[in-house]
Amino acid sequence: MDTVYLDYAATTPLSEPARAAMDPFLRDRFGNASSVHAPGREARKAVDEARERVAAAVGARPDEVVFTSGGTESDNLAIKGAAWHGREQGRDGVVVSAIEHHAVLDPAKWLERQGHRLSVVGVDAGGFVKTDALASAVDARTAIVSVMWANNEVGTIQPITEAARIAREAGAVFHTDAVQGIVWLDVDASMVDLMTLSAHKIGGPKGVGALIVRRGVKVQPLLHGGGQEREVRSGTYNVASIVGFGAAIEHWVDKRAAWASQVASLRDRLQQRLTTMLDRVRVQGESGRLPNNLHLIVEGIDGESMILLLDASGIATSQGSACSSGAAEPSHVLAAMGVSRDLAKGALRLTLGPQTTGSDVDRAAEAIIASVERLRAR
Amino acid sequence: MDTVYLDYAATTPLSEPARAAMDPFLRDRFGNASSVHAPGREARKAVDEARERVAAAVGARPDEVVFTSGGTESDNLAIKGAAWHGREQGRDGVVVSAIEHHAVLDPAKWLERQGHRLSVVGVDAGGFVKTDALASAVDARTAIVSVMWANNEVGTIQPITEAARIAREAGAVFHTDAVQGIVWLDVDASMVDLMTLSAHKIGGPKGVGALIVRRGVKVQPLLHGGGQEREVRSGTYNVASIVGFGAAIEHWVDKRAAWASQVASLRDRLQQRLTTMLDRVRVQGESGRLPNNLHLIVEGIDGESMILLLDASGIATSQGSACSSGAAEPSHVLAAMGVSRDLAKGALRLTLGPQTTGSDVDRAAEAIIASVERLRAR
Repeated sequence: MDTVYLDYAATTPLSEPARAAMDPFLRDRFGNASSVHAPGREARKAVDEARERVAAAVGARPDEVVFTSGGTESDNLAIKGAAWHGREQGRDGVVVSAIEHHAVLDPAKWLERQGHRLSVVGVDAGGFVKTDALASAVDARTAIVSVMWANNEVGTIQPITEAARIAREAGAVFHTDAVQGIVWLDVDASMVDLMTLSAHKIGGPKGVGALIVRRGVKVQPLLHGGGQEREVRSGTYNVASIVGFGAAIEHWVDKRAAWASQVASLRDRLQQRLTTMLDRVRVQGESGRLPNNLHLIVEGIDGESMILLLDASGIATSQGSACSSGAAEPSHVLAAMGVSRDLAKGALRLTLGPQTTGSDVDRAAEAIIASVERLRAR
Repeated sequence: MDTVYLDYAATTPLSEPARAAMDPFLRDRFGNASSVHAPGREARKAVDEARERVAAAVGARPDEVVFTSGGTESDNLAIKGAAWHGREQGRDGVVVSAIEHHAVLDPAKWLERQGHRLSVVGVDAGGFVKTDALASAVDARTAIVSVMWANNEVGTIQPITEAARIAREAGAVFHTDAVQGIVWLDVDASMVDLMTLSAHKIGGPKGVGALIVRRGVKVQPLLHGGGQEREVRSGTYNVASIVGFGAAIEHWVDKRAAWASQVASLRDRLQQRLTTMLDRVRVQGESGRLPNNLHLIVEGIDGESMILLLDASGIATSQGSACSSGAAEPSHVLAAMGVSRDLAKGALRLTLGPQTTGSDVDRAAEAIIASVERLRAR
């Protein structure tokens, strides 16, 4: 029997339009997009078309798209690049929310060790950034404020309009990690200064992403060298993957609204089934989350054991961020929401995607119920 | 008629073994290699097999391979990462050769602006790093020394054994950019502390490379986040491309010696033809260069115009690094070799590859001779 894949927040299969678009660039159209000859110009043209597609998907201009190797690089470039630039302007402050992805949090902590001032702003029990605390943390010396569009573990959609306003009023650069946000929401780059995107969460290839850098916003490069991407990000263009990203984002955004209703309905069925059949189960983020996200805390069980049991039954799930798999520490997102260390061990993240079927959901529900009963009986 | 591609130093076509190895990972084997479930473990296994292949190709251990997004990232990670680490140990010096790729030179210059001491060591007229000057530049406070294995413009093979010895005796970390070196030479990672590799110069995909970090050598990360690659390089594993890199490097290294004789013989035929038929032509790097490299300075012509004329005749060539295409500045490599600004304008880099045929070389020679005559007659 096929695996039931309920870990779409970790990664998604490459979409057919993306694969088809990439194919010629993995064959005879292999030129270096920085070369001036015909094979080079052909590659450059394809990169520029992909740039237009990515820009159109988020309401940006093509010259605001900086291609990177993925979400982690985009986040690092945004946080470090804006902090380094800010420091030269007398702004040494870095303000991030407590539930950011490690690719934002860890650069921020590293900058603090390099002498920058860091404020980490908390969230409420529902998983939403406290905008009053954000407003208190931001001051005239803040260089960069970063609040994600939607959280990757519990799926909560953050108050971006308000957060951006707070940053703007202080003259700070506002960054949002929209890696999960763009999957289900009509994210609008014109609301922010910097926006992180990743291809492989929306049917694109791994190893490519973008940082949207609004006109007039300055970041220092993370990768110096050949001067590609208007000196902001050097490195040979990853032509095939950039082309795949462009095709994937166009296709995904076109289908997104329809898929959102579909996954929400399946997610609700799964939630209904599990909360009815199991006691001592809490749903996180329920007051405003992505339509494909079902994050549960199952009391009295060890989530890691459950993941393994489910995997043995052919159900692929996770406890939270794939990047933190195997880490001994419980989720920093749950900790910020006030979930105890002990309860956090029972975390189970189920994330659906366009390919998820009713039968997938039913098989998963059955397996989860059986696993919980088995683990609780031990 | 097909394009005659003589720009293999800029990029190479994806090899058949690489494409075949990547294919399943662009289809149903799409898991995130950090996930604990079956699709994740399958991806991780493939990444680890690729790691073994890359390690074997350069005489490293698998746990010394850090996968990156390519040569530029590897160079930046090596230079900045070792300099940042060195600074914490009281070592603030950065020493690089004058003919390094911009991906080494520009990070070094950026570090200088951040307060590190930078020494740029010159080369002789033949294009070889002056080891006596290197020895004078390195001191007890040097953190990192970087000398490339072979130059990307003129192809000169550098005195790595001697350079590594100088660095080691001073207790500095020694890095080599072997992006071009590995294409034709049996580069040995055990001779150095850090080694940059790129996949797309050896039949692998663009957007992936590695930094070999010898056991015990410390670099600070450039990309913080999920903690992949033993905390040295965070980011979702670019599974398909890493797998393609592994297959490409194994295949290339297996064929390398045979291909080297073949390209050397064709290169010699091309050089013979051009130097016989054209006057006022100088060959660079002739006393010790890569077998596929023919770098000419054609006096009295503008190289950029020649590239365009040749392109119109279906011959793809370059003036030097693809990364610097369109830059108004003449090559820093030629400047370091003492070539005047005026002469440097006549640079023409011809780089052959395994697919280059005798007929390619003959067509190219004919077109180059015609172009030079036409440009000189203007």
